[in-house]
This record gives sequence, structure tokens and C-alpha cells, in this order.
Amino acid sequence: MPKQSLNAVQSSTEFEVAGGGLLDRRLFLKQGMIFTAATWGALSSQTATAELDRESWTKQPGKPFSNYGSPSDYEKKVIRWIMANDDAPGNGVSWTPLHELEGIVTPSGLHFERHHNGVPAIDPERHRLLIHGLVKRPLTFSVSDILQYPMQSRLCFIECGGNSNAGWRSEPIQTQVGYFHGMASCSEWTGVPLSVVLQEAGIKGRAKWIIAEGGDASMMNISLPLDKALDDCLLALYQNGERLRAENGYPLRLLVPGWEGVLNVKWLKRLHLAAKPVMARNETAKYTELLPSGKARQFSFVMEPKSVITHPSFGHRLDRHGLYQISGLAWSGRGKIAKVEVSADGGKSWAEAELQEPVLPKCFTRFRIPWRWQGQDVVLKSRAFDEAGAVQPERAELIARRGRHGYFHYNAIVSWAITEAGEISHVYL
Amino acid sequence: MPKQSLNAVQSSTEFEVAGGGLLDRRLFLKQGMIFTAATWGALSSQTATAELDRESWTKQPGKPFSNYGSPSDYEKKVIRWIMANDDAPGNGVSWTPLHELEGIVTPSGLHFERHHNGVPAIDPERHRLLIHGLVKRPLTFSVSDILQYPMQSRLCFIECGGNSNAGWRSEPIQTQVGYFHGMASCSEWTGVPLSVVLQEAGIKGRAKWIIAEGGDASMMNISLPLDKALDDCLLALYQNGERLRAENGYPLRLLVPGWEGVLNVKWLKRLHLAAKPVMARNETAKYTELLPSGKARQFSFVMEPKSVITHPSFGHRLDRHGLYQISGLAWSGRGKIAKVEVSADGGKSWAEAELQEPVLPKCFTRFRIPWRWQGQDVVLKSRAFDEAGAVQPERAELIARRGRHGYFHYNAIVSWAITEAGEISHVYL
Repeated sequence: MPKQSLNAVQSSTEFEVAGGGLLDRRLFLKQGMIFTAATWGALSSQTATAELDRESWTKQPGKPFSNYGSPSDYEKKVIRWIMANDDAPGNGVSWTPLHELEGIVTPSGLHFERHHNGVPAIDPERHRLLIHGLVKRPLTFSVSDILQYPMQSRLCFIECGGNSNAGWRSEPIQTQVGYFHGMASCSEWTGVPLSVVLQEAGIKGRAKWIIAEGGDASMMNISLPLDKALDDCLLALYQNGERLRAENGYPLRLLVPGWEGVLNVKWLKRLHLAAKPVMARNETAKYTELLPSGKARQFSFVMEPKSVITHPSFGHRLDRHGLYQISGLAWSGRGKIAKVEVSADGGKSWAEAELQEPVLPKCFTRFRIPWRWQGQDVVLKSRAFDEAGAVQPERAELIARRGRHGYFHYNAIVSWAITEAGEISHVYL
Repeated sequence: MPKQSLNAVQSSTEFEVAGGGLLDRRLFLKQGMIFTAATWGALSSQTATAELDRESWTKQPGKPFSNYGSPSDYEKKVIRWIMANDDAPGNGVSWTPLHELEGIVTPSGLHFERHHNGVPAIDPERHRLLIHGLVKRPLTFSVSDILQYPMQSRLCFIECGGNSNAGWRSEPIQTQVGYFHGMASCSEWTGVPLSVVLQEAGIKGRAKWIIAEGGDASMMNISLPLDKALDDCLLALYQNGERLRAENGYPLRLLVPGWEGVLNVKWLKRLHLAAKPVMARNETAKYTELLPSGKARQFSFVMEPKSVITHPSFGHRLDRHGLYQISGLAWSGRGKIAKVEVSADGGKSWAEAELQEPVLPKCFTRFRIPWRWQGQDVVLKSRAFDEAGAVQPERAELIARRGRHGYFHYNAIVSWAITEAGEISHVYL
């Protein structure tokens, strides 16, 4: 077995770019400079080979082919965590385990869920979309009709407006990243631009809003400004290459890139064009919040820039000194992520992380930065900057602006404190 | 029900850019010009609403949340097709149903498979990777060891060197795109750069090749040039965000971007650095081919530019006249797709298709172009150009170069003939 060679970076300060051990984001490209100091234990390769070849899976045929695959049996712990109403098990949420994942794509089986009355089993042959209200020609579309139209694909995130709401608590929640921030997921969605089918119906001049309604047994509805509908919304039919999963709106959902999740109506059944919003439950009693001024903040659609370090994070434990790669996710509903900065000294100094290509608008962006940990007490933070100029705030700033009665749209900087023993906790700092 | 409004483009030639009805790729952005001519049937929106609300799924709670989701029960036909040896069911292939998919991401459950002796159920706690041969320090790594190293993610395709081999037959095969070209799939892979761990072992000057060996019961091995290993190969641990699927090499596979699939060794167990290739079965008896000169073509690693129209294609039927979006996939092992051209008149004239963003190196690229079909006899073709200057050849050119005894690396232009009745067949033209 090799010794832990990741200690191998010279303990000089040559590559340091900020306090707490943060190193130049290009460091891992300079391999020759880093790893030549490695001192691995020599071992007999004959012995090792013989050992490898003794395993049962080298001795007997494996399982046959499958029509549709599933995760490895050894990965059964990587699941959506469910929090649902005992009396109404279709009402609740399930979270994407972001702390177990890598890259930017969320596998469809782990996309977060938010349902009000369960997942309907809609027959696509019988499903219809109605477009009516302030239109010249009210229309119904079958799914086959919609499949005839020109399509577009885009990789983008969907995030619930209530994601990260534990951040509003007075004490920092101690839980894994996925169960704190995992009401956000990222997929490649394909569908028909909403503008194209609205054009077919003919929009009347007084129309300013679209009331979108789902076809499940909660018949949830919300109001979407017409300008956004004509900008970049899709009638989504495909998710990560295949048709939508039932829990993501099969056979048809609304995709409203960068705006809060509740607008991305699943099992889409009706688009009613109107002069005013409908003032539905989910835009009055819910998804609004009381500000310090006493006024309610309503129709706060855009998901502001957010980032979180996923590795290392709560639930992990640093069990060696040496070199680490800090990695995490950043996203913004306003466009592309322009920059992510990381601090290892609680915000005193910051260094710029590498952004993994592709960097796409309204999409998860993976950031990475090398870090040397030699047992020092540290507080890790990340902050996202988007191309529209918005910056992820410190928690104190967010509370000063929005008050202490918030529940939705929490996007403050997240802080992980790491003790000398390598234990990680969530702190407000 | 709406009438078929996609007839709505004026029958003028205003937007025509090539023969056979091909239209300007930016046409669908000019919605006002296209769809205002639509004449849809008026309908009573009250009646339609009442009808929609009668469906059972609006009346009763849906299914509860799930820890890990699956495709809709209505999509059970979208599967990998399996062709395996009756006597050795772990030896064969399964194809990605490309004709059923959209966008560029292949869902992991539908990633193509090529196994020689089935899918091993490898315990990640016991799996080891040995690096030995011409190295300064032979090393073994556990999976946990490898997970400590800095990672990178990239979206890229893997394509079997034998993909599309039906193209070598003297008569054009009549089958769906997926069962002709579906030994190619595209995922987001995350792992540790191979260069980093090779650097740990220390490469001796005489090393020019790496013999990579899998840990299943076929213990397949192949030879990879060291230059490529140091360029952009990964020890892949994650596929589309989650850990590798068993059938894609769990817990560890080699990722060799843009090179033939057989090099992307699954269940990777050993990397042996050597001065010469090992001349294994899969680089001598297989994955080589007899040229017209009588010489064998060997170590033809790079997957040359290829494209195929997936919509419409064999198995579809055009059941109306009017406007269509032609859509397909293009890819090249040499880098980014620079351009895709489409012909609707059997290659007499060509028009440039729109490339869906993101356009990434060694990755599937989705192309789209509008087309008006008014019942004319047409032959649809697509041809891919990559950033390295390579162009997908016509079949006659490929055969002139490679002879008639080919089996691997078929990348000729694919032609779909469409009759007046809307029937689609594969032709050599």
C-alpha cells in the first residue's frame, strides 16, 4: 500500500495564493513540481499481481447485459433523502445528495423532487396542453403535436425557492450539503421554445402574464410574466437525453431557466394568458416573505448567485495532512458564473478557483482549487460572482437586507469550520 | 384538436438555402415570419378544460417520493438492444437507442455496453490498481487512494471501434439509428488525470506504451501510447454525476477521449509501462483490418468525424406535408465539430446546420436545420467537419481508401431515402 503521498508538496510557501493553505489553482498542471517529492513504499509487483488475480470476479463470468442499467449495488447509500407528510405521503420534498456527486450533471434518478400531491402516472396518449385566455386562437395540443415542433436543448439547473432554507435558522444546521442545498439539480433539458407555441395561438396585446397549471391532483398554478415566457422558456419533453421522468413532469413540464423551481410547472396542462397574475397560493401565502420594512417580497423569481463547497464538507473527515482539492458547485439565475473565490481563513483572504469547462448560463458550474492542510484550524468559504455583476453575500449582509423572517431564497456564503482533528462543522461566521 | 399548422410556412422559396426543401438554419428564430399564417381550428376552452380535468390523475393522489427514480412506465420501449452469445451471455454488445433520444447526454442506464465475459460485481473496498513495469516505484492504489487525488470532469463520447460496422455490408441495413450507430454514447466523466498518478510512479525513459488490463473474468488488455496517456486520459470514477455504473467499469475505468472504445478499459486493474505494445488479441486479431494494399491497418485509435440524422430516420414515417426540424448527432475524436452540412437532394446541394451549444471537443454535438417537405422524393444526408480539418467521407470514398474487407472504423455519410408516402429507408448513394 502506498504511503499518503499527497503530503508531497514542499512545505514552502511558493504556491500560496491566500491564507489557510490555499494554493494556485493551476498547481495541478505543474505535476513535475509537485509529485516528484513523493516517497512511496516499494512493493513487489509479482505479489501484487497474484493478489489482484485471486479475486472472485476474475474467475467467473459476470452478469449478462441489461436493457436499462442501475447504479452499482455498492452505491445504494447514494439516494434522495425524503421528507414527506406522514398523512399525505405525496406532499413533501426529496433532496439531491450533492455531497456524493461530482461534475455538473445530476443523474435523473437523483434529481430533487417537490410534489404537492404525489407523482401522477399520466398516459401520454391522453394528456393535453390547453393554451387559452388572451389569445387569438385557443388551442389544445397532444404530446405528439408538440413533438412535431422545432426543439432546443440546454444544460441548466432547477432550484426550489425554498432551497437552503435551513440557513435562516438561528443555529447553523449540521447536515450534509445535499440535505441543506440539494433542492437544486442540473440536467440537459430538451423541448420546444414556449415562444413558438404562443405565437401559434396569437398573443393579444393586453396579455402580460401566463397562468401555468399542472395536471396532477394538486392542480398547482403559478403566474409567469409573458416577457420571460417569450425569452428562454421551454416546453420540456426530454431530460438528460431521454423522455422526462414521471417525478419531473412526464410527459411535459415548463422549463423556466434560472427562475425559482415552483415556476417550472410539472405535468403541464394549461397555459392561460392574462392581464394580471392569478395570485395563487404559491405566490401569496408561499414563496413570498416579510421584509424588515413590513412589506411582503413577492414575485422574486430569479435565483441569485450561490455556491457551496461539496468536498470537503460536513460529514467528511480529514484523516491526513497534505494536499487536497477543494471542489464545489456554483450557479446563478442571472447568467454564467464569472468567478468563484475560496477562503480558508474565514473570509480574511480569498483566492480564485478554477472553473471547470463548460461554463454555461443558468447552469451548475464546478469549481476546484488545491489546498494544503497541515492540521491548522480553518474555516472554508466560497463565494460566487455572476456575469450580471451579482455577488453571493455573507449571511450578515443577507439578513440586514431581508430580515430574520425569511424562508425562501437563501443564498448566503456557507462556512465549514475544520478542527485540528479534521472534523467539519457548519458555522455562521 | 389543432390542424397541422407546421404547413404554415409560405410555400415561397424565400428561406430556401439548398435543394430538397432545406431552409435557413436561423428560420425558427424568426417566428413572426413563420407561424402567423397558421390556421388552427377554434375550440371552446371551457369544453377543453372540463375534458382535461376529468382524467383520473387529477382526481387522486399520485405515487410517493422515491429514493432513486426510473423512467416512466410508458417509456419501457426505450431500451438498449442486446446482441449476445447464447452460450456465453456475457459476451456481446448492447446499443444506445439514439433514435429515441434528444440532446447530447446519454442517460447512464442506456449507455452502450461491450463486454467479453459479463459485468463483474467488484467490491470497491477490495479492488486495487497496480502501476508497474518501466516505472521508478511500482504502486498499488485502492479506490479510496485514488479518490484523494485532484479530479477533472469532461463531457465526451465513447465509441466502439466496431460501431456502424453494418455499413461495410454490400446491401444497406434497414434498422433504426441506434442499432446501426448506437455503440456510441456521451456522458460527463469525472476522474483523476492519468498523468498525475503516472508521475507518482515515475516514468522511466524507455517507456513508450502502457498495457492496460481490466479486472473482469476476460482480463482483456490493450496497449495505449504513453503520449496519449499523458495528454488527456482520466482514471474515471464518476459518470453523469454519480459513481460509475457496473457495466461501465465500476469502480474504475480508463477514459481515453476520442479514441476507440476498446482502449477505455473497464474495471481497470493494471497499468504496465513498457517499451513496446503487448500485441494482445484486441489489437491484432480484432480492431485491425486488411487494406487494399494487403497490409493490415493496426493501432488506428482515433475515431474519425461522423454524423447521422436521427430525426427523421429509419423507423419513423412522415405522415404530413409541411415544416420539419431535421436533427442529428455529430462527433469527432480529433476535437470539436466545426460544421455539419445537410443535404436533402442526395448530395447535390448542402446547407449548414445549426450546432446546439455547448460544442465541446470529442463530444456529441447536436445539429438542427429546418426543412419543408411537400411530398417530394428526397435523400437526406449529413456530413461532419471537425476543427482538425477532417471531413466525413462519402461511402465510395471510404471504400476506395480502405477496401471492401473493413469491419471497424466505419464513418461514411449515411443516406436516408424518403418516398412520396413518407417512408424512410437506408440507401447507399
